[in-house]
Amino acid sequence: MKIKYPTPNVNKDIKLNQTNKTKVDQHFDHRGMVFEHALNRSNEFYRNRDIAYIYKKPTPVQIVKVDYPKRSSAKIVEAYYQTPSTTDYNGIYKGHYIDYEAKETNNKSFPFKNIFPHQIEHLKNVSRHGGIAFVIIFFKTLERIFIIDIKEFIKYYDNPERKSITFEKIEEIGKEVKIGYTPEIDYLKAVNELYNL
Amino acid sequence: MKIKYPTPNVNKDIKLNQTNKTKVDQHFDHRGMVFEHALNRSNEFYRNRDIAYIYKKPTPVQIVKVDYPKRSSAKIVEAYYQTPSTTDYNGIYKGHYIDYEAKETNNKSFPFKNIFPHQIEHLKNVSRHGGIAFVIIFFKTLERIFIIDIKEFIKYYDNPERKSITFEKIEEIGKEVKIGYTPEIDYLKAVNELYNL
Repeated sequence: MKIKYPTPNVNKDIKLNQTNKTKVDQHFDHRGMVFEHALNRSNEFYRNRDIAYIYKKPTPVQIVKVDYPKRSSAKIVEAYYQTPSTTDYNGIYKGHYIDYEAKETNNKSFPFKNIFPHQIEHLKNVSRHGGIAFVIIFFKTLERIFIIDIKEFIKYYDNPERKSITFEKIEEIGKEVKIGYTPEIDYLKAVNELYNL
Repeated sequence: MKIKYPTPNVNKDIKLNQTNKTKVDQHFDHRGMVFEHALNRSNEFYRNRDIAYIYKKPTPVQIVKVDYPKRSSAKIVEAYYQTPSTTDYNGIYKGHYIDYEAKETNNKSFPFKNIFPHQIEHLKNVSRHGGIAFVIIFFKTLERIFIIDIKEFIKYYDNPERKSITFEKIEEIGKEVKIGYTPEIDYLKAVNELYNL
């Protein structure tokens, strides 16, 4: 999710919260959490039904100081968010390695600055080595979700004249994920269609 | 690695360090780090040669309090180690999903309590869904490393009368990984042999 790490576009959120220091992880905003949590619950649903084993990777944290209070577990007292090496989610589905980055936007286009270049590189590597690699984008204001295979995505991303990809283009090259109940985000149905599984 | 999380067998380490609070992450001991770092460097070697894309998952941390000092990045001031949901390493190799847990022991047998039951479950699930799933064990005193496919491993692990598996048995059912230079731990060579890749 775009606002999880200290990238330039989160500075505003951080400043807004400076008066309210030491609150529970203000990197995450509520709406961001909804999409991520819904994805996590959908992956849990897939696991419970023995459909796929896909997990969100933990947020990488650089640990600087740890306290060891008596009779209780280690307490980390100084740590910092790190840039993730790869993508948010990976796992196994129908014998395939599957890897994706989940993003959301309030715009009616997806700005490329919302995704790290090395995450795109990682998805390209996965795809080249025979894995399923895509970006899943939630358009918040439209309440619509799409998956876009990395090979299609980079046709636009790798164009130096483009800074974003429009919703219309994503409708054309992506596969829509229906928002439902169990699971809330049945993206593997879209994966089946997009990759003929 | 077995001493990364607050499991019963790390309590001694923690107590030893109580006089030295707030030192850099004393969960890790030096020898433990050598094996983990050597594995990480080997995976980096594989990535640089475009052989495989396998990463160590970040250590999961439950973040409780974050400070937002002016003009600097978010500082986590209260957090705790969490039990990992899955295994240490996963990725893609020759089109296959690959997943493993790395362990080391000072003994001449591997004690089953050194691995979480849900990690075994995870590896069984991966294997059943067509992925490559194994345990890689470093016998420190012997300076020898073996990979054991999860299907072989559970033949002993699932026996309620056994609390460990002997080195001799691992020599018999596992595949030895030679310790070298570039990469230091060329475990994918052993994977090729064990899985006929």
